Amino acid sequence: MTDTLNGVFAAVLTRLGADGAPDASATARHCRWLLENGCDGLSVLGTTGEANSFTVDERLALLDGLAEAGIPGETLMPGVGCCALPDTITLARRAAEHGAGGVLMLPPFYYKNVGDDGLFAAFSEVIEAIGDDRLRVYVYHFPQMSGVPLPASLIERLLARYPGTVAGMKDSSGDLDNMVTVARAFPGFAVFSGSDELFWPLLQAGGAGCITAVSNVAAPLAHEVWTAHRRGDVAAADLAHDKLSAVRRAIAAYPLAAALKAVMARGSGDTDWLRIRPPLMPLSDADVGALLNALDGLGFALPPQP
Amino acid sequence: MTDTLNGVFAAVLTRLGADGAPDASATARHCRWLLENGCDGLSVLGTTGEANSFTVDERLALLDGLAEAGIPGETLMPGVGCCALPDTITLARRAAEHGAGGVLMLPPFYYKNVGDDGLFAAFSEVIEAIGDDRLRVYVYHFPQMSGVPLPASLIERLLARYPGTVAGMKDSSGDLDNMVTVARAFPGFAVFSGSDELFWPLLQAGGAGCITAVSNVAAPLAHEVWTAHRRGDVAAADLAHDKLSAVRRAIAAYPLAAALKAVMARGSGDTDWLRIRPPLMPLSDADVGALLNALDGLGFALPPQP
Repeated sequence: MTDTLNGVFAAVLTRLGADGAPDASATARHCRWLLENGCDGLSVLGTTGEANSFTVDERLALLDGLAEAGIPGETLMPGVGCCALPDTITLARRAAEHGAGGVLMLPPFYYKNVGDDGLFAAFSEVIEAIGDDRLRVYVYHFPQMSGVPLPASLIERLLARYPGTVAGMKDSSGDLDNMVTVARAFPGFAVFSGSDELFWPLLQAGGAGCITAVSNVAAPLAHEVWTAHRRGDVAAADLAHDKLSAVRRAIAAYPLAAALKAVMARGSGDTDWLRIRPPLMPLSDADVGALLNALDGLGFALPPQP
Repeated sequence: MTDTLNGVFAAVLTRLGADGAPDASATARHCRWLLENGCDGLSVLGTTGEANSFTVDERLALLDGLAEAGIPGETLMPGVGCCALPDTITLARRAAEHGAGGVLMLPPFYYKNVGDDGLFAAFSEVIEAIGDDRLRVYVYHFPQMSGVPLPASLIERLLARYPGTVAGMKDSSGDLDNMVTVARAFPGFAVFSGSDELFWPLLQAGGAGCITAVSNVAAPLAHEVWTAHRRGDVAAADLAHDKLSAVRRAIAAYPLAAALKAVMARGSGDTDWLRIRPPLMPLSDADVGALLNALDGLGFALPPQP
């Protein structure tokens, strides 16, 4: 496992069109802007990207559209995990065909308490059905949303069986102990924090990076943490970590995807950013005002838009 | 709301073919047998039917196959609720086109804590997109599995806005108080218990029926409860309730769908029944033996197979 991903990944917002469907061209512009402003990679079609609110065809069209728009495949770690394994296979195969650096894979998340055997069978079925040496799977541990935790015992089994394919994990549990335990137990297995505030602590314990919603608007700060860490400048990393954490706390006082879309709409002047698909809802005007005031108070500003 | 459904509904198991996909013809035979052995209706493609493990196309093919096999549309209450609203719309529209008596609709269940406004927007979008007067929506409250409870406040809003369409609820929470509260608060709103053991208590409080997994194998007992209730014979209903509850407890000691498939395989001699799609897994041989012994001890036997 020498080719795992690392660094700062945005859990990329999906810009919707007037028809309420993903607008691949506008989302590609956002992706390019992120790569130019501190992101090492792009986890499109994850929780923040509203992936599970889109049909498989809508998701495939977005993947195809990003490729057509020239977003480099190796920067991508698309979310692909669905409840129905054939859908996961379809999405992961297409991502691999586009040369994705990895895929972020939720377990099938409708059934709860299915046990390690059921989860192992599910991941196995997907990996073996795709049968593509280019496939790199990052499992997605997000028990608060999926209701299906991925224990270290499962990761151990998957790594033993698919050592070249199972490459890492995104951990959005908010549990630093779990991330550190997994990172230390499985050397070379790339552990990404789903939280901005745990990014720097995880790096210090051997983690690979972060994949976060807030990186849609604050990737330059996460990039400062990452580069300071790489050059061994603890004081600079601490400082950037504190700034990033303050921004995160201001935004996470509201539902994340809606709040980030409001920040993008203000920063870009493009109110189409406010569209969001139910069951997620836009913030109220009062919440938008309070959020933007809080960010102004932190001296926060988006990088210039293209 | 004079045309709501009632009585005993099986949460119908899906018989898989050798390719691991739903076998519509074999599932239709099971449906017919259920209608001949105590079921008033058939809730196909629900939790027990592994619906969320199937693609939308697999589910549409099953709905079409049941219609082609002559299963009467008015007996059907197919599960249609997906994470992505366009998928829910596709499935519910097809069910309505086949003349389904109702559709059982989970809320979009990936995002948690979305609030009443988000849930109302989701159900609204589906109902208005379909725009078919034949549509009858039974909302599906199953917080342990979906992670998205449907509070009475939401039902009240939906009934106020779509009184001819929103027809009832399946409550699999196991919380009799919730079922009774909703049944009493909204006269004419058909509340179905997702639990065999709460079926009779709910009927006594004004409920409409049950939609249960165990009815795949024990519908005659549930039918006894229902018919005794209809003729006002409390003693007979109590007796059937006790027998049904004992069978339910024996089966529910194991994962339900797998346990029921094992019972069907033994009773029918058709071991193809044992197929189940990950993340669900078949019972171990030891568990199958213990389950069948427990049912034998209760004097339980399946009705003869066709």
